[in-house]
Amino acid sequence: MTLVALSGGVGGAKLVSGLAGVCGPGELMAVVNTGDDFDYLGLRVCPDIDSVLYAAAGLNDSVRGWGRENESWNFHHSLPQLGFESWFMLGDRDLATHVLRTDWLRQGATLSEVTARMAHALGLAFDIVPMSDDAVRTHVDTPEGVLAFQDYFVRRRCEPLCRGIRFEGAGTARLAAPLARQADAGAVQGWVICPSNPFVSIGPMLAVPGLRDRLGQRRAPCVAVSPIIAGQAVKGPAAKMMAELGLEVSALGVARRYAGLIDGLVLDRRDAAQAPAIEALGIRVGVTDTLMTDADSRERVARASLELIARCG
Amino acid sequence: MTLVALSGGVGGAKLVSGLAGVCGPGELMAVVNTGDDFDYLGLRVCPDIDSVLYAAAGLNDSVRGWGRENESWNFHHSLPQLGFESWFMLGDRDLATHVLRTDWLRQGATLSEVTARMAHALGLAFDIVPMSDDAVRTHVDTPEGVLAFQDYFVRRRCEPLCRGIRFEGAGTARLAAPLARQADAGAVQGWVICPSNPFVSIGPMLAVPGLRDRLGQRRAPCVAVSPIIAGQAVKGPAAKMMAELGLEVSALGVARRYAGLIDGLVLDRRDAAQAPAIEALGIRVGVTDTLMTDADSRERVARASLELIARCG
Repeated sequence: MTLVALSGGVGGAKLVSGLAGVCGPGELMAVVNTGDDFDYLGLRVCPDIDSVLYAAAGLNDSVRGWGRENESWNFHHSLPQLGFESWFMLGDRDLATHVLRTDWLRQGATLSEVTARMAHALGLAFDIVPMSDDAVRTHVDTPEGVLAFQDYFVRRRCEPLCRGIRFEGAGTARLAAPLARQADAGAVQGWVICPSNPFVSIGPMLAVPGLRDRLGQRRAPCVAVSPIIAGQAVKGPAAKMMAELGLEVSALGVARRYAGLIDGLVLDRRDAAQAPAIEALGIRVGVTDTLMTDADSRERVARASLELIARCG
Repeated sequence: MTLVALSGGVGGAKLVSGLAGVCGPGELMAVVNTGDDFDYLGLRVCPDIDSVLYAAAGLNDSVRGWGRENESWNFHHSLPQLGFESWFMLGDRDLATHVLRTDWLRQGATLSEVTARMAHALGLAFDIVPMSDDAVRTHVDTPEGVLAFQDYFVRRRCEPLCRGIRFEGAGTARLAAPLARQADAGAVQGWVICPSNPFVSIGPMLAVPGLRDRLGQRRAPCVAVSPIIAGQAVKGPAAKMMAELGLEVSALGVARRYAGLIDGLVLDRRDAAQAPAIEALGIRVGVTDTLMTDADSRERVARASLELIARCG
């Protein structure tokens, strides 16, 4: 069997690591958002793929919340000496990923191939697949104009009002081959939408027709884990974006966003009172402590997801 | 007046720094070998330009003898984790130079422009000019086949026998514009060939027709500083290559190599006995302590070069 987890960055990466801990080798495929990807200083940076790779390999910095642990910043601090003021911090260890990826892509490898090669080198026992090998780029519509995602997210620190989101290239992007093969062979026995930003992490994936269609035609259950706990996002701009785009910042708001797409939603205990309203949308509910702070809590949320899939099957 | 110094890597960079200390602002132009340049991991690495930039800015590691001081190697050590065994060490600080250069070249800047921008950012008061903006690549003919220079120099540690050297692209490479303008305006009042490897550092420059012709037609004196002291190269494979290519490993051997090209040669005191034989070639001789170990010794050799230029004028 294959479990497919749709993941954005850090929150998704935590659940993917948890699922990897409870699934057998080869039973998990993490499909990762590439809408955040961008080229910086000529290097292809794929923040969500890297978050999943690093978390799964135990290389992530859990205190800072992004990038690699034991990181150094000598590259970053050397740039201004040479006349370049950088607004995007690339750590020295992290840079190895970007430089290698860029070089392998330049030599003709697909992003799927590059990612698989790195996952293999890191000794991971599950597949990590970008949602597409074609470029999809998230843009945020703000009063300052349409901003490329990293421009909004990092340079402008998510401060501008978000009036809308678009995914350039999504309409013609093909679903990455490894997932297409699994789905078309009927080998997917469950789908998990990770607790990632519904708009800018999961949104780009659902904008890829090949993924949206396969999810719509699936026979296996699909459950999501709410990225909102007690009215707040654990990390990142999800809560701010939900509010600005007119969605209630709650597990119920998440359920409304995914209504028609998911069969079940895993909520935090603090949001259990919203279960009846969510069930009224035709969505089954699982309840647990969804805050993932260590390996145990990651596996707890992973198990809750699998249990809900079983109940929805 | 403009003094033009033809420089390879570390030895040349030391004399260039010394000359910068005794010349007024804007009176010195360092023309640097690019035959060692290569693309590694998709990054343009220009070892000799970087040696001159770092030494002039006081950023070089004088103990290790190459690269930047206070360097860290986290990028390098992260590559094998991702499945790439690297044979060329790129330091984290050094990497900023390669990544920026590669990105600026990709955006359409010439190597001359990139180098000038970095020299300006580093606060240097003299010009650093690559010998050409066109690609010239040194190859070494060995019993193992023809090796690209860094393959011979770094990966194979100069161990294979050197049977010959060729400079791919030199025949059609144009002299970099800043030097062409100075030379054609008659503004060059002296040429110094730095104590760099005559074959693989100075050789590629002399293989560029625009530089060779302007040197041949010059009205200002040209002096060299011997890279051989007491029968040994201070650093690098110059002595080994001279021997393998049938040249005596001595200041006299250097003089024979440059005969017809230079008006004067600065020797180390330990080689003063060779002065008559060198003068018999029509080359005037200056003698000093040519080992450059600190700022004082670099300026001493710089002054000896300028004095010999004055005597040859």
